[in-house]
Amino acid sequence: MNSDLQAVTVVGLGSMGSALAAALLDRGHPTTVWNRSAGKAQALVERGARLAATPEESIAASPLIIACVLDYEALHTVLDPVVGALAGKALVNLTSGSPEQAHEAAAWAQTHGADYLDGAIMTTPPGVGSPEMMFLYSGSDAVFDVHRPTLAALGDPLHLGADPGLASLYDAALLGLMWATMTGWLHGIALVGAEKIPATAITPIAIRWLTAVNGFLTRYAAQVDAGRYPGDDATVDVQIAAIDHLIHAAADRGVDNALPEVLKAAMKRAKAAGHGSDSYASLIEVLKNPGDEK
Amino acid sequence: MNSDLQAVTVVGLGSMGSALAAALLDRGHPTTVWNRSAGKAQALVERGARLAATPEESIAASPLIIACVLDYEALHTVLDPVVGALAGKALVNLTSGSPEQAHEAAAWAQTHGADYLDGAIMTTPPGVGSPEMMFLYSGSDAVFDVHRPTLAALGDPLHLGADPGLASLYDAALLGLMWATMTGWLHGIALVGAEKIPATAITPIAIRWLTAVNGFLTRYAAQVDAGRYPGDDATVDVQIAAIDHLIHAAADRGVDNALPEVLKAAMKRAKAAGHGSDSYASLIEVLKNPGDEK
Repeated sequence: MNSDLQAVTVVGLGSMGSALAAALLDRGHPTTVWNRSAGKAQALVERGARLAATPEESIAASPLIIACVLDYEALHTVLDPVVGALAGKALVNLTSGSPEQAHEAAAWAQTHGADYLDGAIMTTPPGVGSPEMMFLYSGSDAVFDVHRPTLAALGDPLHLGADPGLASLYDAALLGLMWATMTGWLHGIALVGAEKIPATAITPIAIRWLTAVNGFLTRYAAQVDAGRYPGDDATVDVQIAAIDHLIHAAADRGVDNALPEVLKAAMKRAKAAGHGSDSYASLIEVLKNPGDEK
Repeated sequence: MNSDLQAVTVVGLGSMGSALAAALLDRGHPTTVWNRSAGKAQALVERGARLAATPEESIAASPLIIACVLDYEALHTVLDPVVGALAGKALVNLTSGSPEQAHEAAAWAQTHGADYLDGAIMTTPPGVGSPEMMFLYSGSDAVFDVHRPTLAALGDPLHLGADPGLASLYDAALLGLMWATMTGWLHGIALVGAEKIPATAITPIAIRWLTAVNGFLTRYAAQVDAGRYPGDDATVDVQIAAIDHLIHAAADRGVDNALPEVLKAAMKRAKAAGHGSDSYASLIEVLKNPGDEK
């Protein structure tokens, strides 16, 4: 413990909440913890955490409260009965939820005199504490600036803006990117695996390929913001021709094609909307406006 | 030109074939080109290429022939009438196609006394010539070893194995990963863009996030090869709960949800097959065996 460092309370000791508390203890922050079932606090207490007997006691212990519970219902179950204790405190809510839930929680905190930041954790529990991992925050700039040094114990804190819903919105968008990428990778692994190539053989090549794909994303982001999609590198028409090779090769090997079929359908909708000679970035037009291209 | 360097012929001068010939010229290779319509050769001739009057003359000019035409039908239209000239030459075929087409072309080349490598270009024309960009090759180890120094002029040459279909198979798998990643990214851009956030603001965060995702791919590749998917970082059940936040947030903002819906369906099939407490890598089981989990 280092008494120069901000005292912090962590509410919720699932695997993620426990990782947050452990990272704070590792940096020397006086750390108080509370969990519905106290047993989960044992390992943290052995590392120097103080276990509060009640939620109210946990809130009283620190000016900064970090909450990471199952969902917003659980958040309100814990905090509503003791909301009076939050006045003058800062609540950093890392519970997963929607932008709308974040807006409601921010209004609720303000009503009760608490500062509020909403946040999203862009790593798994073993990644908590690494400065490479992103923690996304949204809400008051001033509140973020005050607590940034403490939040840096958890990972690299990025402030997205004053709208408290932004962290959840970015989180949803980034998780969607992750699921799409992981499923596309698994489809490829299944395809190549049908020829007895191990996943560990193709994956380093896939990761290197994603570096090239990052270059396309950077170029296409500027196209999306400009609303113009010059197809001078590769057109939607070229991609439609190429995806049939994938679909046929996978079908021949008994690999499920639901994902490439939905990707092909999106490409064909872009073509139908007049984007056949444009770049892949033009698919944003049909994603933003489903049905418009009819 | 550098007469110590291998003479090379490039057949097909679309944007990709022209980029290949230009990269060879840049390295000083004596380069002969041929294209169905000779006009496309003009810029290359100005840079030092020799324009052959016929396909036969182009093949006679060099021991190594690189073909990059629209498809395998175009390849055979050009080369079948002059196949006698290929005896004793090496044909590197960078035309896009299926593993089966690569097998057929390899057998056809062998029948006519030519060495054969199949290849796939993992970049767009502006990336040709960069040592960071991957060129995938499959076919005889010995033929690859002989021509590797020349092929390095085009990009980083990776040899995948003696089966000539492997380059096309990897190409299909990697393009599938690219389309999934780009479409997942576009969906996220559309979602966040509904709140007036520019694509160029979220994309650097998305690219940084993909670095974390690469870590998941590396861990999950080992799980796939082992056939065991411990869900100690994040389970399929957790992902199913989280994807509803994405689907609801996107639906509220009028963004098309076909992609996340197909991803959620794959997750639910994995759960139905008993993988709810396993990692996301367990989805490989339902992708490999569509329908088995009923």
